[in-house]
Amino acid sequence: LINASPFGLHPAMFLPTLKLMCDEEQKGWWVDRAERGEIIGTYVQTELGHGTFLRGLETTATLDLATDEWVIHSPTLTSAKYWPGGLGFSCSHAIVMARLLIPTRSSSSREQKYADYGPQPFLLRLRSSSPPHAPLPGITLGDIGPKMGLNTTDNGFAKFNQVRIPRRHMLMRDARVEKDGTFTKRKGDGGKAAYGTMIWTRNLIVETVAFQLAMAAVIAIRYSVVREQGVGMGPAALLSSSSLQEQEPASRIKEVAIIHYRTQQYRLFTALSHAFALVFASQALDDLYKRHLALSTFPPSNAPTHPRNPLALLPSTHLYTALIKALSTTLSSALTEDLRRCCGGHGYSLLSGLPEIVTSVVPTATLEGENVVMWGQGARGLVKIAKGIREGRFGGERGVEGEMEGCGYLVEGYERGEAVLPRDDVNWGDIGMVVKLFEERASTLIFEAESLVREGEGAAEAWNEHAMALSAAARAHAELFVLRAFVRVVHGQLVLSPETHSTLSTLLSLHALSTLLTPTICPSSPSPSTFLTHSSLRPSHLRSINATISQLLKELVPEAVRLTDGWEFSDAMLRSALGCADGDVYERMWAWTGQVGLNGAGVVGALGDGVAENPVRARL
Amino acid sequence: LINASPFGLHPAMFLPTLKLMCDEEQKGWWVDRAERGEIIGTYVQTELGHGTFLRGLETTATLDLATDEWVIHSPTLTSAKYWPGGLGFSCSHAIVMARLLIPTRSSSSREQKYADYGPQPFLLRLRSSSPPHAPLPGITLGDIGPKMGLNTTDNGFAKFNQVRIPRRHMLMRDARVEKDGTFTKRKGDGGKAAYGTMIWTRNLIVETVAFQLAMAAVIAIRYSVVREQGVGMGPAALLSSSSLQEQEPASRIKEVAIIHYRTQQYRLFTALSHAFALVFASQALDDLYKRHLALSTFPPSNAPTHPRNPLALLPSTHLYTALIKALSTTLSSALTEDLRRCCGGHGYSLLSGLPEIVTSVVPTATLEGENVVMWGQGARGLVKIAKGIREGRFGGERGVEGEMEGCGYLVEGYERGEAVLPRDDVNWGDIGMVVKLFEERASTLIFEAESLVREGEGAAEAWNEHAMALSAAARAHAELFVLRAFVRVVHGQLVLSPETHSTLSTLLSLHALSTLLTPTICPSSPSPSTFLTHSSLRPSHLRSINATISQLLKELVPEAVRLTDGWEFSDAMLRSALGCADGDVYERMWAWTGQVGLNGAGVVGALGDGVAENPVRARL
Ligand SMILES: Cc1cc2nc3c(=O)[nH]c(=O)nc-3n(C[C@H](O)[C@H](O)[C@H](O)COP(=O)(O)OP(=O)(O)OC[C@H]3O[C@@H](n4cnc5c(N)ncnc54)[C@H](O)[C@@H]3O)c2cc1C
Ligand SMILES: Cc1cc2nc3c(=O)[nH]c(=O)nc-3n(C[C@H](O)[C@H](O)[C@H](O)COP(=O)(O)OP(=O)(O)OC[C@H]3O[C@@H](n4cnc5c(N)ncnc54)[C@H](O)[C@@H]3O)c2cc1C
Repeated sequence: LINASPFGLHPAMFLPTLKLMCDEEQKGWWVDRAERGEIIGTYVQTELGHGTFLRGLETTATLDLATDEWVIHSPTLTSAKYWPGGLGFSCSHAIVMARLLIPTRSSSSREQKYADYGPQPFLLRLRSSSPPHAPLPGITLGDIGPKMGLNTTDNGFAKFNQVRIPRRHMLMRDARVEKDGTFTKRKGDGGKAAYGTMIWTRNLIVETVAFQLAMAAVIAIRYSVVREQGVGMGPAALLSSSSLQEQEPASRIKEVAIIHYRTQQYRLFTALSHAFALVFASQALDDLYKRHLALSTFPPSNAPTHPRNPLALLPSTHLYTALIKALSTTLSSALTEDLRRCCGGHGYSLLSGLPEIVTSVVPTATLEGENVVMWGQGARGLVKIAKGIREGRFGGERGVEGEMEGCGYLVEGYERGEAVLPRDDVNWGDIGMVVKLFEERASTLIFEAESLVREGEGAAEAWNEHAMALSAAARAHAELFVLRAFVRVVHGQLVLSPETHSTLSTLLSLHALSTLLTPTICPSSPSPSTFLTHSSLRPSHLRSINATISQLLKELVPEAVRLTDGWEFSDAMLRSALGCADGDVYERMWAWTGQVGLNGAGVVGALGDGVAENPVRARL
Repeated sequence: LINASPFGLHPAMFLPTLKLMCDEEQKGWWVDRAERGEIIGTYVQTELGHGTFLRGLETTATLDLATDEWVIHSPTLTSAKYWPGGLGFSCSHAIVMARLLIPTRSSSSREQKYADYGPQPFLLRLRSSSPPHAPLPGITLGDIGPKMGLNTTDNGFAKFNQVRIPRRHMLMRDARVEKDGTFTKRKGDGGKAAYGTMIWTRNLIVETVAFQLAMAAVIAIRYSVVREQGVGMGPAALLSSSSLQEQEPASRIKEVAIIHYRTQQYRLFTALSHAFALVFASQALDDLYKRHLALSTFPPSNAPTHPRNPLALLPSTHLYTALIKALSTTLSSALTEDLRRCCGGHGYSLLSGLPEIVTSVVPTATLEGENVVMWGQGARGLVKIAKGIREGRFGGERGVEGEMEGCGYLVEGYERGEAVLPRDDVNWGDIGMVVKLFEERASTLIFEAESLVREGEGAAEAWNEHAMALSAAARAHAELFVLRAFVRVVHGQLVLSPETHSTLSTLLSLHALSTLLTPTICPSSPSPSTFLTHSSLRPSHLRSINATISQLLKELVPEAVRLTDGWEFSDAMLRSALGCADGDVYERMWAWTGQVGLNGAGVVGALGDGVAENPVRARL
């Protein structure tokens, strides 16, 4: 969504950044014009040689005291801006991140020295306002070329050669630079409010990939109801293909719809359960972010009724945004690709709509916070809490929950004596117990991670050495957050119809139990199921889990079509010959194939004949 | 490779099928001409509505007794051929799979009845031999349209409207049809020799994806040596970005090459170790296939010295081809995509060469035997052996190994008393013990699977119900095969230089231990590490495994560049701006970007200036 249109960055990043990072006067200049679309902007941070590590950026913005201007410059090849969406051709403006340099007056040496205040945002006009809207002098713009997907967007590059803009074109909500070069930072939040755009964009990504996963699941489930293939997997199904049978030429062996294969069911419905889970998690994130905004923009001065730190929710917002961004994009990448394979050969055709979903989901694991780095950041926040608990630092009024939402369970985990699961006779339908099991695992991993980095000599080395244990801990906490969000919807205050409640409960159990069995695969973590190693789950429990899962899948099959229709995706949204609501898969594949440009008119005309059979949509 | 060129199917499937499925006279007619390229062919099996399940094909070949011809016909929409490579425009001929129908003379009813002998191969001319090489009458051909990748091949469709070919254009090595309609099958092999092409093609796929994985690993490792990003993961690395520093504008914080991150090392080097493992496994497969060919084509009549069944190796060849095809394509799909992500944003650019590798590897999980179905077939073979062992059926001279190569360990596994691993103090460098552990797991899983389907009522239902346990068992055996192939190279008769031996040993250990921790992820199997549940591996062992892996990774880092050069891929083969041997990543990215068509000449000209820094390849 964000990345699929050259103008996607405008609402997703440009406008929010203006709103969050301009001071009041600047908002007056630009926000309205941007909202009316008079200026179309993008967000320009990444460079050819630098991305993840913001402080590594090389583009400079040097204050010229004489003219009261910034000089924006790309000093090296690696400092060329590279990747921003819409930068190639589509945008008139950009917010450019550049290192703020101010000449130091006290310098006595011959060479001019500069104070480096690190990356700051600047608003730049890129192109002339009159046709043909050529790049302004000193600015070289272009398209970075073909990509794995999202080729409808002109991700671009930019090189700046001493480009001058007024001093007040630095966005100055959080830091100000005066005419005389004085640099001041806004008090109170230590620049942390700058996370605003990032949090907003990451939450948007979570929501987007959750729905893309749902779309892929809808397509694959619908196709699996129609597609017939084979007669089972057992040895009986393996009769030699040339056994003599006397029959009509047109009559065929009766095959089964692939949705009846257990493997297919597991793949389809766990993916669907994750789509629901991620949508609910995204809503929970959004709620957290809104509470944070409400708290932080409430003027603290006139608020005796409001004794809390206005930024009290920032650590939580920051933690969960990073964690759920990483979890949702990892899961959606793996699952949309698997759903594509669930459609066999046809899933490889663009006519299925699935390759486009996959290739637009996979880069989200990289952009806006590379996932490995996100897990690391999440782990850092959690280890800090664990350390505080071990050292007894959260005894006060606010407690652990006040420090970091959703972490109260760690206190219990730290003190826990007995195992959550009984040795046998587990009732896997007891979702409360399953949540406890997720808590048990997460807290065991988090305290272990905390002790690993504590034991290690030299902080940085220990963090690197145990990066995989750390990210496993972060992931466990992320999965707990998602599970809780799902539980809150199913068992919360929302009034659901009995059928919806029952189907969602089934999906909730499937989501939880499949996560128990195959914890999120994250390449940076070689851990096998951390439930087996870090909770009271034992190999002996697996049989009953598998039996429960079988039962859940059986319950879901008759609901399959209803579950896909429930998302209310229009055919136009899915753009899939396999996934339309009417189930006319083969007619549509054939008709769309006929429209392929390579095939001349003669071919298209000939496609009509021979269509003898109208495959009826298989009924479950 | 096979699928990247419109003519790829010709050597990969058309020619081998001719060689394997023609009788001697037919070989004389066609093989030479095909080898000289006078006829260019493809292999046409899949239909719009049918793929995996061969017996479901609908295209018919009906014998016309009056004219001694076959009538090839597509009776329905779903019977249109769909997918074959090169079918759209490039090929003159095709081997078409169609159901062989012979009118039955004894029929007394008014309607003509037919005997259906199932799918058989027919050689068809598709296009006129004179320009413009139009499709012959009755044949509609075209391109199926855009795909996720491999768009340089015209995967096509074909519809046949009563197309007539001579009777002798059925490939008749395994089955013959006489002028009077008599159908006879070649004695002895029950049509099993027809697996020939399939085995050949699957082995080719294994080899191809193994090298594609190696190419992706080479690109990502080289890039990781050059790319610098950040200063570590620990809390110390997280200083606010705006801390005041007085410095030269051009000087930057010293960043670290990303290969120094433990997570990155793990991802890069385990992927590389899998590439080696799969290449060795592919050689072992090839060796097995050659022994099978030698055995089966040796005329049994004049061979008293040769008492064995000429098809004695067919079950083994068939089993391992299916298993290793599934394992290698599953692994390569997941790992090439992860290697792509190891290159951050640039890995998403086609200039990196990685998206093309990924999108050409992923369909191999589907084509030539859909992987879920391959695991099922593998499991079937293994369960049969396990059943035989349980019933004491392999006591004879040939023994279990004679029945199925590499399965002898199952006897020991069936009888095993004590655990392979000691409770503690494991020496993970003892590769013999690790192999035993793989055997322990595989045999436990296989016998469990055998008992599950035995207990189940109604064979087909039980096989479906326990499909996931079955495929986990198959996977375990496949991983054992691969590990053994790797061990044979490192510790076998081949004389290796001391350095090569030492580096390969390190990679072998990494391959084995990382497989212990994260057993191949297969969507159809929700099992967590089956080592934890089905071998003597205990959670308490994990710490020492992780420590050993850390040590192995440390040893590999200084070898990184040598390891990539060792594959001897030329820059032209890799076609990657990130992965060239000289490490000039940014210059090449920038130069290639300048050549992007969208960017006019003006832009290209301007790219030259401002290039101030020549980033030196980071040294390890
Ligand atoms: C489709 C797309 C759209 C984009 N749109 C924009 C845009 O509009 N504006 C913009 O400014 N940018 C944009 N980008 C760029 C994007 O934000 C960056 O690519 C992303 O932030 C990743 O940074 P990188 O490329 O530097 O990766 P790198 O950081 O170089 O990652 C390479 C490897 O190093 C590893 N690594 C890096 N740091 C660490 C660490 N500390 N510890 C362990 N491992 C580490 C990573 O895990 C990864 O495996 C876009 C990118 C894409 C693909
Ligand atoms: C790039 C490419 C090139 C190709 N080239 C050729 C070619 O040259 N010639 C040619 O003839 N064909 C070709 N094909 C077609 C290819 O061989 C088929 O797509 C492949 O065999 C899979 O069959 P299918 O599409 O019918 O998948 P399906 O069998 O319909 O698979 C759909 C889903 O059903 C599941 N399923 C199917 N059967 C079972 C079962 N028994 N138990 C459990 N689950 C099951 C699968 O796991 C999958 O999830 C090509 C395909 C591609 C993508």
